Amino acid sequence: MSLKKFLLEEKDIPTAWYNITADMKNKPRPILNPGTKQPVKEEELYPLFAKALAHQELNQTDAWIEIPGEVREMYKIWRPTPLVRAYGLEKALDTPAHIYFKNESVSPVGSHKLNSAIAQAYFCKQEGVTNITTETGAGQWGAAMSYAAKVFGLELAVYMVKISYHQKPYRRSIMQTFGAQVIASPSMSTKAGRKILTDHPNYQGSLGTAISEAVELAIQTPNCKYVLGSVLSHVMLHQTVIGLEAEKQMELAGEYPDVVIGCFGGGSNFSGISFPFLRHKLNEGKEIRIVAAEPASCPKLTRGAFQYDFGDEAGYTPLIPMFTLGHNFAPAHIHAGGLRYHGAGSIVSQLRKDGYMEAVDIKQLDSFAAATLFAQAEGIIPAPESAHAIAAAIQEANQAKEEGKQRTILFNLSGHGLIDMAAYDQYFAGDLGNYELSDEEVNAKLADLEKII
Amino acid sequence: MSLKKFLLEEKDIPTAWYNITADMKNKPRPILNPGTKQPVKEEELYPLFAKALAHQELNQTDAWIEIPGEVREMYKIWRPTPLVRAYGLEKALDTPAHIYFKNESVSPVGSHKLNSAIAQAYFCKQEGVTNITTETGAGQWGAAMSYAAKVFGLELAVYMVKISYHQKPYRRSIMQTFGAQVIASPSMSTKAGRKILTDHPNYQGSLGTAISEAVELAIQTPNCKYVLGSVLSHVMLHQTVIGLEAEKQMELAGEYPDVVIGCFGGGSNFSGISFPFLRHKLNEGKEIRIVAAEPASCPKLTRGAFQYDFGDEAGYTPLIPMFTLGHNFAPAHIHAGGLRYHGAGSIVSQLRKDGYMEAVDIKQLDSFAAATLFAQAEGIIPAPESAHAIAAAIQEANQAKEEGKQRTILFNLSGHGLIDMAAYDQYFAGDLGNYELSDEEVNAKLADLEKII
Repeated sequence: MSLKKFLLEEKDIPTAWYNITADMKNKPRPILNPGTKQPVKEEELYPLFAKALAHQELNQTDAWIEIPGEVREMYKIWRPTPLVRAYGLEKALDTPAHIYFKNESVSPVGSHKLNSAIAQAYFCKQEGVTNITTETGAGQWGAAMSYAAKVFGLELAVYMVKISYHQKPYRRSIMQTFGAQVIASPSMSTKAGRKILTDHPNYQGSLGTAISEAVELAIQTPNCKYVLGSVLSHVMLHQTVIGLEAEKQMELAGEYPDVVIGCFGGGSNFSGISFPFLRHKLNEGKEIRIVAAEPASCPKLTRGAFQYDFGDEAGYTPLIPMFTLGHNFAPAHIHAGGLRYHGAGSIVSQLRKDGYMEAVDIKQLDSFAAATLFAQAEGIIPAPESAHAIAAAIQEANQAKEEGKQRTILFNLSGHGLIDMAAYDQYFAGDLGNYELSDEEVNAKLADLEKII
Repeated sequence: MSLKKFLLEEKDIPTAWYNITADMKNKPRPILNPGTKQPVKEEELYPLFAKALAHQELNQTDAWIEIPGEVREMYKIWRPTPLVRAYGLEKALDTPAHIYFKNESVSPVGSHKLNSAIAQAYFCKQEGVTNITTETGAGQWGAAMSYAAKVFGLELAVYMVKISYHQKPYRRSIMQTFGAQVIASPSMSTKAGRKILTDHPNYQGSLGTAISEAVELAIQTPNCKYVLGSVLSHVMLHQTVIGLEAEKQMELAGEYPDVVIGCFGGGSNFSGISFPFLRHKLNEGKEIRIVAAEPASCPKLTRGAFQYDFGDEAGYTPLIPMFTLGHNFAPAHIHAGGLRYHGAGSIVSQLRKDGYMEAVDIKQLDSFAAATLFAQAEGIIPAPESAHAIAAAIQEANQAKEEGKQRTILFNLSGHGLIDMAAYDQYFAGDLGNYELSDEEVNAKLADLEKII
């Protein structure tokens, strides 16, 4: 009988994170101080981030960053995660393709987000920080950060995007069970929140606005730092444990992926699964396709502009070189709350620009059709975000079938959807829309983009 | 660095289930035909159960029953499950005890129930059955059976206890995602349901009533069998994969448990974790304590009577020799819906009678306090049912601390509580009661017990 899961032991948990920027010929352009328009220096990040994280953020020389022992100890709670051969899905699709997924949904909080949450909480604690703030979309990052904060004895305030706060009330409950304070964003507790509520009274929030609120609170609170679950380079760094494990596991499976797929919001799980594979493309010219799957309602990688933009709605963050739809882009209320972000991180944006990766956009209904097929075939109900990666994987498998050729597909199952069942209920009731943006809408959006630099 | 998880490989999935009755000196008394009061013959079970399952139900001679290859293949989706050393909980309790838990919550449907659901669906399919019916309390069994039915191409109708249907709407959504039909019980679709709704207009249901409805529908539907998630001996049999794996894993950990704990509703997860350890007590006199943790609101093992009783409210099932509070017992609306059952299966009842195991009762608030402590220490939000086992494990660990002695504790984490967050919300809001039964209430209940035989 053949193996279904490819498992590693605790000793196989990576001992170092992979910093892809060290291997990039074209480095990501620097992030800029929005006042001076000069590259941000490490010290300028200290008011907001723990020093170790600020250092990681700007480090473009060391390919490997050692994982502290205490972080690795925590990783043992759920890592290494399984690599699974999706025999059930292959059968349902009747495809010659071999489909594998890295199952990050087995983390206690249900997603890959804990990989970076544990690391960020650890570095904050090391430096004597007592309070932290963050934002969350669907709540996967917030849930992860809440547990990590509890483990390291930090007080945490989470700004949760209002639409998700109402769509997914039980992820708020999870955060509260771990002891965090959760505020629906936009809120009246910050200047940024008050402003957008005044300008747009019924605004249901975005990741960009929630970031503004969390940053503002961090700056105004003594001994407090801000932590972020995506977009930034040090987050991508921490997430590479996913791909590093997957690489060893594909070896156990005796195959190498032709294509690696991750869903795409700010880039955390996508980078995590793909960068370790991309390094062989960068360094050895290995032939492998890397595909980001983003929602058709928020298509920055497929249809956005590459330029400097703010990471948040209010314009508090440094300027980031990104594929963007504009920092004040208000995405449709799709259930994949973690993908409702206007821009891509600087590393992914550079890689995309240089042709090292592709992007596809997935309509909401297609993502739920893929999710349901996957659930019935593999038993796991996927997060609406991860469903985008599944839909892209299914497209690849169907293409392989049309061509009558084998193709080895690896995707990241970034999280489960057990807290998203209301979305499934709406899907089955026929109450979900696609929210696809027309060319006119995208063009209008892009024509409007403020050229900040 | 020490190990946190003790992992096995797919080849270590047990090849046979353990049938404890073969090793019991005092066999469980036979289940009886309620009409003739004579022991039920295998053939009499055929109208309700697949033949292979009926045979397993009455088999008291073969200690090992081979697991079919197709079932073992399905087990590979999530088995072997990890055995985890609860370092976080030990630290939080500051106890000299070593606490281990078997993590059955990693199953795709979130609990141990899939172990038997897959097996039952397989045997039904083998015999050409096309439709099946079942009941579910909190929905863990219903979710498992829904996925198993989908895998083997069976149509499934689930009667879900009404209080849980409303408390845990998203477990209903999960069942529907897997393609099952879910009906709140009591319903108007059966004679048993109509009768209890007429007698008690606002009745919120019980497992006993839901079983009556499912049995009635199965009998009236062509080519349809009934499947059950607990109580029956063949369910206990299938669940022994839990303890068989745990035994090997404790060996990897270099320890042997002083006490093995499972929460107790009808006995499925309790039997699964404990019977493989109990066999050494039965066969070699090994010293080990086995503890069932039941809710104080439904204390059949600690305070019930040992006698013949029906397995369901309407009296459709054979008579089962059980510790019982009466088949018409209406348990309080605790959130541990899976533990709201009036009786214990025949094997456990006999073992309890013969002094091979103990039982403790846990109040609802104590179960949630234990669950919250565990969640913050280990990152996993437990099911309200499993929280009873955690509370009992904490009592053992605290006792070890008082005595200043090491004690090795193993409990079964039967499932996660991600679909039960509304219960946690109520707990934090101070809206939950204990629902402990007074001696007067229990005595009145027992005095009322109909002596059926």
